[in-house]
Parts: sequence; C-alpha cells; structure tokens
Amino acid sequence: MDTIKADLKNYKALLRNYIETQDEKSLYGAEQISKSFIKKNILPEEIVNLHIQAITELYPDLSEDIQHAMNFLLETMISYGLAHQEFQTLREKQL
Amino acid sequence: MDTIKADLKNYKALLRNYIETQDEKSLYGAEQISKSFIKKNILPEEIVNLHIQAITELYPDLSEDIQHAMNFLLETMISYGLAHQEFQTLREKQL
Repeated sequence: MDTIKADLKNYKALLRNYIETQDEKSLYGAEQISKSFIKKNILPEEIVNLHIQAITELYPDLSEDIQHAMNFLLETMISYGLAHQEFQTLREKQL
Repeated sequence: MDTIKADLKNYKALLRNYIETQDEKSLYGAEQISKSFIKKNILPEEIVNLHIQAITELYPDLSEDIQHAMNFLLETMISYGLAHQEFQTLREKQL
C-alpha cells in the first residue's frame, strides 16, 4: 500500500471513530496523525483534500451542497499553502 | 462591526455564492479572502473555524455526524498550526 493510501486509511479510521465517540483518544489520534503529516511536509490543503476523500467515502450520499462547501474550503487552503511556501522561500533566502 | 464578524460575513456570502453557482468568480473570491487572511496572520485552523461557523449558519439542520467531522478536521489543523508556529520561531532564531 502506498503512503497516500495508508494516510487516507488511517485518517478515515480515526475520523469514523471520532464521529462515533467524540472521545479524547480520537482527538489524540488527530493530533498524532497531524504531526506525522507535518514531518512529511504535507501542506494544510492536502489535509483538507484527505478529509474530503474520507468524508465522501464514509458518507457516499452526502449532499452536493456540503461537497461544494468543502471544495470552497479546499480552495482557500490552496491559496494559503501557496503563500506559505512563498513566505518559506523568502525566509530561506534570508538565512 | 468588528473584524471577525466582517470576515465571517464575507466568507459566508462567498461560500453561499460558490455553493449556488460553482463559478470562477466565487473561486477567485476564495483566493482573495484567503490572501487577506494571510496578511492578517490568520492561521489555517482559524479558516476552518470560520468555515464551520459559516456552514452551520447556512445549514442549521446539518447532521451531527458532519459537524463532528468538521471538528475533527479543526483538531488536525490546530496541531498543524501549533507546529507551524514552533517552526517559525526556530527559523527566526536562526536569523
């Protein structure tokens, strides 16, 4: 199994568990998976993308409005990620 | 009107427009609002928080599962934002 598929599988399992229980353990899982994403230099929009994939697999009958709404959030994050990368590049030039 | 309320109002209007039309203009709006958030040093989790507020105002009958799912996404972003800030601090120390 490649990394993206493994990440999606893990994220989906944690998300499902959180939806069912809203317990501290699932929140701790969210924190841990997030930290592992950071180590892999995964940008915030990629997490939103993973979230969209997970939620549409868990809820295949999800209303189109909610799917559009998530795509809008993804769009704001893409701009955010791009600007963040520019900022990083500038910082690195200053080093 | 304070800034957060104005941001929420703008985000909600753009989001509603995107849900209704999915047109390029709304996507451009997403890009612009995102850029204005970056200028104000707003972290990604704050955008997710704004998104949650907007979507629950637009869809007050949204299923609890979907609300929980968005809170889980928020949690992953909070960790991400924290780690990002630590990274920034380290970078600044290196300057």
